Amino acid sequence: MSDLSQTITGFDVWHLEVPVVSARDHGIGRVEGSCEIVVLRLTSEGGDQGFGEASPWSVFTGTPEATFAALDRYLRPLVVGQSVGDRVAIMANAQRAVAHCTEAKAALESALLDLAGCITGLPVWAFLGGKCRETIPLSCSIANPDFDADIALMERLRADGVGLIKLKTGFKDHAFDVMRLERIAQDFPEFGVRVDYNQGLEIEEAIPRVLDVAQFRPDFIEQPVRFHHYDMMAQLRGMTDVPLLADESVFGPEDMVRAAREGICDGVSIKIMKSGGLARGQSVARIAAANGLMAYGGDMFEAGLAHLAGTHMIAATPEITLGCEFYQASYFLTEDILETPFQVENGHVVVPDTPGLGARPDLEKLKRLAVRTSS
Amino acid sequence: MSDLSQTITGFDVWHLEVPVVSARDHGIGRVEGSCEIVVLRLTSEGGDQGFGEASPWSVFTGTPEATFAALDRYLRPLVVGQSVGDRVAIMANAQRAVAHCTEAKAALESALLDLAGCITGLPVWAFLGGKCRETIPLSCSIANPDFDADIALMERLRADGVGLIKLKTGFKDHAFDVMRLERIAQDFPEFGVRVDYNQGLEIEEAIPRVLDVAQFRPDFIEQPVRFHHYDMMAQLRGMTDVPLLADESVFGPEDMVRAAREGICDGVSIKIMKSGGLARGQSVARIAAANGLMAYGGDMFEAGLAHLAGTHMIAATPEITLGCEFYQASYFLTEDILETPFQVENGHVVVPDTPGLGARPDLEKLKRLAVRTSS
Repeated sequence: MSDLSQTITGFDVWHLEVPVVSARDHGIGRVEGSCEIVVLRLTSEGGDQGFGEASPWSVFTGTPEATFAALDRYLRPLVVGQSVGDRVAIMANAQRAVAHCTEAKAALESALLDLAGCITGLPVWAFLGGKCRETIPLSCSIANPDFDADIALMERLRADGVGLIKLKTGFKDHAFDVMRLERIAQDFPEFGVRVDYNQGLEIEEAIPRVLDVAQFRPDFIEQPVRFHHYDMMAQLRGMTDVPLLADESVFGPEDMVRAAREGICDGVSIKIMKSGGLARGQSVARIAAANGLMAYGGDMFEAGLAHLAGTHMIAATPEITLGCEFYQASYFLTEDILETPFQVENGHVVVPDTPGLGARPDLEKLKRLAVRTSS
Repeated sequence: MSDLSQTITGFDVWHLEVPVVSARDHGIGRVEGSCEIVVLRLTSEGGDQGFGEASPWSVFTGTPEATFAALDRYLRPLVVGQSVGDRVAIMANAQRAVAHCTEAKAALESALLDLAGCITGLPVWAFLGGKCRETIPLSCSIANPDFDADIALMERLRADGVGLIKLKTGFKDHAFDVMRLERIAQDFPEFGVRVDYNQGLEIEEAIPRVLDVAQFRPDFIEQPVRFHHYDMMAQLRGMTDVPLLADESVFGPEDMVRAAREGICDGVSIKIMKSGGLARGQSVARIAAANGLMAYGGDMFEAGLAHLAGTHMIAATPEITLGCEFYQASYFLTEDILETPFQVENGHVVVPDTPGLGARPDLEKLKRLAVRTSS
């Protein structure tokens, strides 16, 4: 019998700089040159290994330095010496051991699940309730300050069968946003279009700009204003029948309860890097659904290892119906960190059925891309 | 004329381990051996210097590693090259440049104010609206797992003229809390007593324990449950006429608005390390007062430099009427980091009238206590 009572004996952390193909402007912040992630490897006494990725963004969830320290110093003692099967107990302790650092907690839970999967031969989705879908529609973000480059990207996406794009708005002037929406409507009418401000609008400009953009009838408009502007979110929601999605306003289940109570959104972008883990991401989805709200599988600036964790979470969560945005491994990173490519077929992410997360990082790449490690 | 248009040219950061005299249990976490703080020094082109302290607590606001990185990497570029007088612009940028890291932002504002004070000859309170009090009643926390040591401390406090103590509860069993309250009522009746759970109670035990402790008629009971348990806070508030204070539930003005709207507390513990600066701390106090709520000047595990910043903030904020707890420099640290002692006279903190914060760190001590530095 596969033995989940095995003790966790190894805990290795890598802080990586993963080169990216272009700059990306996302409302309140830009990513350029590389995205920084932190990879955790857990090893059990039997020699099995589980991996997890933390994908922090300093203006949104936290810094890679905070993530690295959270794992290396504050979470390590709660994990080493514990049993692989004690996942919920370990995660409950982790939740209280260090403030914020939700990305570190997501990496920890991913690695615990991957390890349990490798020991038992089961895919991660099996530990999260089972599987409700084989594939997940992929959305790719259009966020390049150079729109010509994004036009080339959209042509590539169309050729690849990707049917959803998300236009990042609010980082330049409004005319740039409107011009791009017009151009997309004209030249790429086959795409389902979402609009995401990443908190980019000031209060005084939010209403006219959102109403203007709503005239293009996108699938939804995401997080136009700052995360704590709940009243403005609720007001904007009431002013248009285009669904309003919350992202930065909702990290975990506690925020979701409040967002639903205050009526700030028609749906929510769920990210394990915000919720602090896969189980908590599922809780967000269930609270949303119980309140009659939609859910979308968002991501951060991730590599394929985090995509895989998100994929298993969505695969096991029927309430997340609006697809996912795990596009970076295929369209944003110069090279991904996985040994085998993150699988996207005909515009859909393929849910793995192999043990654990379904792929693991290439150790040579970890070594090459690492700016800091700790064992 | 003193010149606030001077450019900021120097930005130095020290991560310190400052030894402490005993362990302290504060609800959800323990501090033992040393407390870790981060000190920032800004230097202007004219050679003036301003200092600020960040006092993170990993289970509450963040880790020292996150604080160090926030200052060293993410806030530094927003500060160097700017004018000393552009404080609100710098702080507005800092607020958005990195998520969380409120302690780093508090240190930055403290250093900007200290620098402006040193250049102009004005005390920091002059930049925050002027002074409404010469002294602030000091409260000292009783948090030692060894209660006999705390009895010795209370005797010392009594001899020093300190009139306020705050009993930290919820870290051992309830009987230990009740025993200590009984003992204090019997042997130290002259103290005004506050009770602080630091989120230490589980939902299922909160009501009976809080009602039990309320029978001792403390000045207030602070943060019995987890920060996001707003409903339980409101319920507890309704069950006793002993005032209920919010601490971890209220970081900045945004939380204060929500806490007042949801009726979760009769007052709030204001800490610059939570609010992300002195000006934002004042905003919290004003929102509280406008809602008819009390305010108290709390602190973290701080050295004297952070005490000084808090002292100037409270000196300039009439709404903070319940005193302060800047006791660590006198009663908790093996040695403080300031060149001249943080001034407490007859149980009251003395508001400095000298330029800037009124004292600066001893550079030899910074050198000796540093575990990491960056310039």
